[in-house]
Amino acid sequence: MKKEKIVIIGAGFGGLNLAKRLDKNKYDVVVVDRRNYHSFPPLFYQVASSGLEPSNIAFPVRREIRSRRMRGVLYRYGKVTEIDMAKRELVTQYERISFDKLVIAAGTTNNFFGNDTLDEHVYTLKTVPEAIRTRNAVLGRLERGSIETDPVRRKALLTFVVVGGGPAGVEVAGALGEMKRYIIKKEYPLISRDEVHVLLVEGTGKVLGTMSPASSDDARKALGELMVELKLNTMVKTVENGRVTFTDGTGIDAETIIWTAGVAGVPFVLTGTDVRAGRGGRFTVDEYNRVEGLDGVYAIGDIAMHADERYPRGCPQVAQPAIQQARTLARNLNSGEFTRPFSYRDKGSMATIGRNRAVVDMGRMHFSGFPAWLLWMVVHLMSLMGMRNRAMVFLNWFWNYFNFGSPLRVLMRPSRLPLPSFRDE
Amino acid sequence: MKKEKIVIIGAGFGGLNLAKRLDKNKYDVVVVDRRNYHSFPPLFYQVASSGLEPSNIAFPVRREIRSRRMRGVLYRYGKVTEIDMAKRELVTQYERISFDKLVIAAGTTNNFFGNDTLDEHVYTLKTVPEAIRTRNAVLGRLERGSIETDPVRRKALLTFVVVGGGPAGVEVAGALGEMKRYIIKKEYPLISRDEVHVLLVEGTGKVLGTMSPASSDDARKALGELMVELKLNTMVKTVENGRVTFTDGTGIDAETIIWTAGVAGVPFVLTGTDVRAGRGGRFTVDEYNRVEGLDGVYAIGDIAMHADERYPRGCPQVAQPAIQQARTLARNLNSGEFTRPFSYRDKGSMATIGRNRAVVDMGRMHFSGFPAWLLWMVVHLMSLMGMRNRAMVFLNWFWNYFNFGSPLRVLMRPSRLPLPSFRDE
Repeated sequence: MKKEKIVIIGAGFGGLNLAKRLDKNKYDVVVVDRRNYHSFPPLFYQVASSGLEPSNIAFPVRREIRSRRMRGVLYRYGKVTEIDMAKRELVTQYERISFDKLVIAAGTTNNFFGNDTLDEHVYTLKTVPEAIRTRNAVLGRLERGSIETDPVRRKALLTFVVVGGGPAGVEVAGALGEMKRYIIKKEYPLISRDEVHVLLVEGTGKVLGTMSPASSDDARKALGELMVELKLNTMVKTVENGRVTFTDGTGIDAETIIWTAGVAGVPFVLTGTDVRAGRGGRFTVDEYNRVEGLDGVYAIGDIAMHADERYPRGCPQVAQPAIQQARTLARNLNSGEFTRPFSYRDKGSMATIGRNRAVVDMGRMHFSGFPAWLLWMVVHLMSLMGMRNRAMVFLNWFWNYFNFGSPLRVLMRPSRLPLPSFRDE
Repeated sequence: MKKEKIVIIGAGFGGLNLAKRLDKNKYDVVVVDRRNYHSFPPLFYQVASSGLEPSNIAFPVRREIRSRRMRGVLYRYGKVTEIDMAKRELVTQYERISFDKLVIAAGTTNNFFGNDTLDEHVYTLKTVPEAIRTRNAVLGRLERGSIETDPVRRKALLTFVVVGGGPAGVEVAGALGEMKRYIIKKEYPLISRDEVHVLLVEGTGKVLGTMSPASSDDARKALGELMVELKLNTMVKTVENGRVTFTDGTGIDAETIIWTAGVAGVPFVLTGTDVRAGRGGRFTVDEYNRVEGLDGVYAIGDIAMHADERYPRGCPQVAQPAIQQARTLARNLNSGEFTRPFSYRDKGSMATIGRNRAVVDMGRMHFSGFPAWLLWMVVHLMSLMGMRNRAMVFLNWFWNYFNFGSPLRVLMRPSRLPLPSFRDE
């Protein structure tokens, strides 16, 4: 019998794990991604803070699908702009791709909650290029700040505001705090440490709100040790060039605002159906990750939303649910009948706040400090794809640990010449 | 007595070696560079061909000047736009920097020989960002080509023209040849190897014209083994989007033209003097690297031009002369009297054409093949700054050698959002 064609949108944790597990004798598998590499979001903040190289956490898709279990998987380069349910085709800027079954694993992008001019004024961490842009901004402000003589401008250049007290915000604020505490004195003789301000702004009363109170507490302490100023129960109201104002009426001169405050599902144009993505741009799925109302269409990972009693607002938007959903969906698709409902097994959560500092929740257990930091490193090393990348990341971390890292503090602006583009783009 | 202030333009081989050797008790040393990193041009082509990561060959200046021998050296971030000889000041986009003595070590940029619209149509290798742009172009064309169904467009997408048969051109053409020979089959199932064309265009009758006839000959053979088509005694006449024409009247559809055909000294506005840079944008210097007509101003490296009987057109524009000139100039400046004339000691030259293939000239000696390739690797590893970078590059080469490299085939376009810029930029 003729194989069915399954097209997967997205080469993230969900998409690649699904492609690996699908039965290639039963399905022709195609992976479409706007980027030719799989990347590792948990470490984006380390690119932004010059701790890791982009290539350490970006793995060419074509290389991944060379592995034995991926044999036969096809990769298509392109950004899916439309899902045409009438013709059962995807539309990219280059081609139309037909599908029998479709899996939406496109993940999320930044959410500015309607304030869309923000993206020109803030720096973000949702992709590797965004992290590089943020890194360049931080390094550029330090260079510029060490030259500036006007005190007001100088203060704005040397003030870094991180918005959002979740793991990403805490981790990048911690890295900036380390920069203030360890790097400035060594490498910027014309900047005094006290001139550098790192401010973490969080709308609720605590950082790492999704973790245990103990973790939240330890994180707060660790941030304090790294000279990060906390501004809780406060949200950003406006951001203009050089000034940010808050809902509590206060404001501060700052030219670098790093936004980690929200995510939303990657948007698509859906035609030939009335189904639309729901709250936060996520597709509502049943316990088998079937998108409600779309026959033969599935969603996994950050962009899928299935509310159950344990997670009334859907699974946390991290790697583990995506990987587990991919596994379950592959089993159901391979067997041909949907008998195995998905249920999320929480393996715990962790966050790191600079060297030797981290917090870990596993079930009822909480621990922090050096052991947590070690565990954090091991878990993340093991989650990386490929021995080479593990070796490279380990080498970098090892190096940075003993040198209070700075080998990667390279402000590498893209060539000002046009990007490589195609006439039909 | 008050220290003299020496300002060095450029953190390349010349600039950093000079800064290291100048007597800090006698001089205040300032290094100005538009980039906050020193980089290693001999390996740019490997970034362009996905063999190395940018960070492997880019070293933050602030880190370099932390070394003992650099203690006290100040780094200023900025692009020198003007040299004001009346006030004896440099002008950057951020500030004016006064100097007692000035050393111009700014190196070279691309030379399009007046055909200045070229830079929008060709890809270049003179900086790391340019090399990344070239890498992205090559990877993008392959992705696009594997999708394209129109045969004419597809051929243009899969045709890569390298202009210039010097070391850079030969090395990048060789790397593209390896891609054709080893990578395509493995990673691009929808592209047949015969569809990929790599063309090397050289104006003279041979490649590596500055090296020995034997080396030139071996290089030509090696390129042939890597399926690189040679077009000798030919120059590029016009380049439009998708088509390049040659002086021999022929033309070819190609969307990727890599330009390595010429360099010119980085240009400056000189005020308060009639002295100007000469042919190829190089400053004419005497045997002590003193710029003729400018008191207390020196030039070293690619941008300096001193004709003697052995090198009537000046030293070759490579790392060694810059390093040796820095050494001699430092001695003369430290002693305070110019007694030691510069004379270039040619340590030999080498080029590599893909794995296991290289050519080496040392004095009268020539050798090629695997031993030459090993020597090439050792010499370049040793020339890198810092153990970390050596380890990283070695790890990459080791990996690539046994995996017919592709871990770095990442098409990472810069974020489309504005670059981190400053209001006064």
